[in-house]
Amino acid sequence: MTINLPLLCVLLLSILSVNSIVEARIRHHRWEVKYEFKSPDCFRKLVITINGRTPGPTIRAQQGDTIIVDLKNSLVTENVAIHWHGIRQIGTPWADGTEGVTQCPILPGDTFRYMFVVDRAGTYMYHAHYGMQREAGLYGSIRVALPDGEVEPFSYDYDRSIILNDWYHKSTYEQAAGLSSVPFVWVGDPQSLMIQGRGRFNCSKPGVEAASCNATNPECSPYVLTVVPGKTYRLRIGSLTALAALSFEIEGHNMTVVEADGHYVQPFTVKNLFIYSGETYSVLITANQDPSRNYWAVSKMVSRNNTTPNALAIFNYYPNHPKRSPPTVPPSGPFWNDISPRVNQSLAIKSHPNYIHPVPQTSDRVIILLNTQNRINGSVKWSINNVSFTLPHTPYLVSLKQNLLDSFEQTPPPDVIDGYHTYDINTVAPNVNATTSNSVYRLKFNTTVDIILQNANTMTSNNSETHPWHLHGHDFWVVGYGSGKFNVSEDPKKYNLVDPIMKNTVPVHPYGWTALRFVADNPGVWAFHCHIESHFYMGMGTVFEEGIEKVTKLPSSIMGCGDTKRFIRP
Amino acid sequence: MTINLPLLCVLLLSILSVNSIVEARIRHHRWEVKYEFKSPDCFRKLVITINGRTPGPTIRAQQGDTIIVDLKNSLVTENVAIHWHGIRQIGTPWADGTEGVTQCPILPGDTFRYMFVVDRAGTYMYHAHYGMQREAGLYGSIRVALPDGEVEPFSYDYDRSIILNDWYHKSTYEQAAGLSSVPFVWVGDPQSLMIQGRGRFNCSKPGVEAASCNATNPECSPYVLTVVPGKTYRLRIGSLTALAALSFEIEGHNMTVVEADGHYVQPFTVKNLFIYSGETYSVLITANQDPSRNYWAVSKMVSRNNTTPNALAIFNYYPNHPKRSPPTVPPSGPFWNDISPRVNQSLAIKSHPNYIHPVPQTSDRVIILLNTQNRINGSVKWSINNVSFTLPHTPYLVSLKQNLLDSFEQTPPPDVIDGYHTYDINTVAPNVNATTSNSVYRLKFNTTVDIILQNANTMTSNNSETHPWHLHGHDFWVVGYGSGKFNVSEDPKKYNLVDPIMKNTVPVHPYGWTALRFVADNPGVWAFHCHIESHFYMGMGTVFEEGIEKVTKLPSSIMGCGDTKRFIRP
Repeated sequence: MTINLPLLCVLLLSILSVNSIVEARIRHHRWEVKYEFKSPDCFRKLVITINGRTPGPTIRAQQGDTIIVDLKNSLVTENVAIHWHGIRQIGTPWADGTEGVTQCPILPGDTFRYMFVVDRAGTYMYHAHYGMQREAGLYGSIRVALPDGEVEPFSYDYDRSIILNDWYHKSTYEQAAGLSSVPFVWVGDPQSLMIQGRGRFNCSKPGVEAASCNATNPECSPYVLTVVPGKTYRLRIGSLTALAALSFEIEGHNMTVVEADGHYVQPFTVKNLFIYSGETYSVLITANQDPSRNYWAVSKMVSRNNTTPNALAIFNYYPNHPKRSPPTVPPSGPFWNDISPRVNQSLAIKSHPNYIHPVPQTSDRVIILLNTQNRINGSVKWSINNVSFTLPHTPYLVSLKQNLLDSFEQTPPPDVIDGYHTYDINTVAPNVNATTSNSVYRLKFNTTVDIILQNANTMTSNNSETHPWHLHGHDFWVVGYGSGKFNVSEDPKKYNLVDPIMKNTVPVHPYGWTALRFVADNPGVWAFHCHIESHFYMGMGTVFEEGIEKVTKLPSSIMGCGDTKRFIRP
Repeated sequence: MTINLPLLCVLLLSILSVNSIVEARIRHHRWEVKYEFKSPDCFRKLVITINGRTPGPTIRAQQGDTIIVDLKNSLVTENVAIHWHGIRQIGTPWADGTEGVTQCPILPGDTFRYMFVVDRAGTYMYHAHYGMQREAGLYGSIRVALPDGEVEPFSYDYDRSIILNDWYHKSTYEQAAGLSSVPFVWVGDPQSLMIQGRGRFNCSKPGVEAASCNATNPECSPYVLTVVPGKTYRLRIGSLTALAALSFEIEGHNMTVVEADGHYVQPFTVKNLFIYSGETYSVLITANQDPSRNYWAVSKMVSRNNTTPNALAIFNYYPNHPKRSPPTVPPSGPFWNDISPRVNQSLAIKSHPNYIHPVPQTSDRVIILLNTQNRINGSVKWSINNVSFTLPHTPYLVSLKQNLLDSFEQTPPPDVIDGYHTYDINTVAPNVNATTSNSVYRLKFNTTVDIILQNANTMTSNNSETHPWHLHGHDFWVVGYGSGKFNVSEDPKKYNLVDPIMKNTVPVHPYGWTALRFVADNPGVWAFHCHIESHFYMGMGTVFEEGIEKVTKLPSSIMGCGDTKRFIRP
């Protein structure tokens, strides 16, 4: 018998490729979450790992794939929930992973199945969405590729993902207990910034125990991005900082911004990219500099005066040694308090002309969310329209679907606070009527909603902070930014209703406003909140319900807490 | 109208006394559990408080009262459960508070109602029974008085309760993660011992941050027991140490032991009382020394070589200033490694002759529990008959009552290990066949069971540790102690079947054995384990089921986790 080798190869290849198409449909992950000691910035502390790692495994998928994550909680006494940041969960609102909003927490010993479709190519992330567990290291990347045969509106040779973060040495429990204390105890600036889970704390600092800090630990060796001279890299950059607004740059290399939060951007070039917690960007970088050396990649904290050292990674030109330090001093980055380049970058982000999602030209409802800092019963809180948000212990998705009206306060928060027109955003918050509440906004299905994020002065004079707001279950059009007080009659005339970018996270700059528009067309219950973890914990968020009547039968796996315990039969 | 004042007084008094009798029937407590920063040994750390306190509020009741504790979990991401240590929960096995055994954990935001009768006067305690939360400070005293008209077989003027403890500066998460790590990380000796929640860490130690340690913090001022010269005090002493076996003494004063774990003891006098985690004693102390000065009360760690300083309290003779230091050096206590006085005290504890509960003269079943230390899959564990116990995530009480046979391993552990008769307890544990399991012993209802706790050498040569074993749902007769290997045919002949004490917690001494007898007459599922918190966490325990068919309808409040989630209707 003779074997036709070329034909066999073709057959084998076609079988393999059929298999790979079949396998592309469902991406099944089995994750175990537990506490382990790690030294991501050389300082040894307890972190939450997924399958032994922080950041956790990257989810790679193709548009249209179904992701299944069987998440086993192996924490001893603590529950967990994971949010798939940027995935809209169309048809699967119960898989959004937001404790108190879309599900009960996952108990120790339980395995919870997250199952959802990634319906759009792009750069996304996942992270814990329960208490302040995100800061304990429970996060990772999601990268969704285009369907076969489709191409991006830009070209590159290689694709890389990194997540930027900040890092605290105190436990999330200590941080949370401090935020709830009277008097208020703030954890302070992060000890480190991290690039793809690696930072570098100065172990020689006085008072640092040698046993808990080892500068030669491989877990904190700098992240290395190795590049081949002349090639172009798509670098997908996400930020999941607890607090820090960041500037990211690669010494001597421009970056062309091509994607934001899963949407194609009309390309523009920057020396440094400003990125806020909850945002993702893709930038193109061509390795077109002197290839005989390496370069620094730098992440720097901006927007807030701070003592946190910059994070450094190595942009390594192959075949130089990846650990060879660049011969130069790392770039020092922009001044922390220079707002204008940050606002300018926000303004520069527009939809790619070939990928414009037409924005509705009018809206049905305008909600002006005034962000203020308040003191309520002696505690420092953040409030939206004088309501400091608290999560209920019965997930809204269940209580709204099942009409458990006692599970949360039924009076909705206001669309605009009384006296908004005379409120002075430039003085120390005078509003003393703030209360805590778990009430929600109920949106009429399929209506178009404008949200105006209005920033203001905090409780400290001459201080207003940057807040990145993240909307679950949606992308929104970013129709405008402005400084000062939003003018209800004039400012909407200046909205960009031609080519606004769609995003899921957007900053409101100090003393400024940001206007968003979205269509309430995704049946479910969706959190909308400042992505600074402590700010949400302190009340800076709210929740939208839309089309709850269209949500199909809820899986029982999301129930079992709060009033959904009532569903237990004896 | 004239008023007959004396008659009015009598009427009022009788109304009041009726009321007080009525109120004595139900003792209703509302507790909120949360994290707070406290400095119980001057070192500031996160602790779990009840209504802002650690130790929590003392429960005072009278025999026959019903205790109701509405426990609100205000931890952010962490569940909780509280065990009522020494209360047998006759008729209320679901109120024992043992996570994984009698209930699901209480979720954040939930309020769980514990309701049970305190059916016997005596000295008891409560504490967290979930993960290692007890060590985070969640504990307190229960004091049950005799019914009106009944008197103790001893007299005293005043009644006081204290709990002895040890204290770690690392969080319980760090401790637990270390115990589960490969390689094993042990937290080491406690930083402090505490008397009624007050210890004294040396803040001047090198490396201790001034901000986190303040020797003048009133939270760590020594506990003061103020006495009136000539009066006799009943001091109720409990131990809830995580690790330490203790010796407690009051300088210059003898103590007469009159109660142990709620049972009257044939009185005997000691200079120092040895007390193991989980035990309670009442001692009588007469303030019969020079009243012009104060005296030291000292708690010292024994049984294990250690670096932990002794705890000091002040035995204050009124009217001396309570903070006046005694003029003497505190007594240094017994040598840590002198076993014989500890064994002698164990042997000295017999039932008060007028309060003997007759012990069954024969038993129906003998279970020999060989305690060994093992390495399983690289982890250091403790095993009982080669089974290192793990808790299931479905409480046994529900799974056994509802026949959820997949919820735990159905093959029971052995009553005696194969090869027991040739096992050498004096050499480094040779048994390599240890496994982890959540299987349980099922006892025939109303039968009499003997338990032999057999100690052995650990994985370190020439080392055997003291383990205090605590049985839930029962008191047992302590019928014998011995050194070396238990002899099945000879040793039972030496049992004390005349006046053995009944207890709920008993030590097994190094290289020794302890024999217990109890009647399996309390329908329910009951944990039996070493009360050293890390030892139970590492597998040193087991569970007994008896009369599950007699348990009445289980409250749904204990369900909702593991396989009892199945009971949720969609």
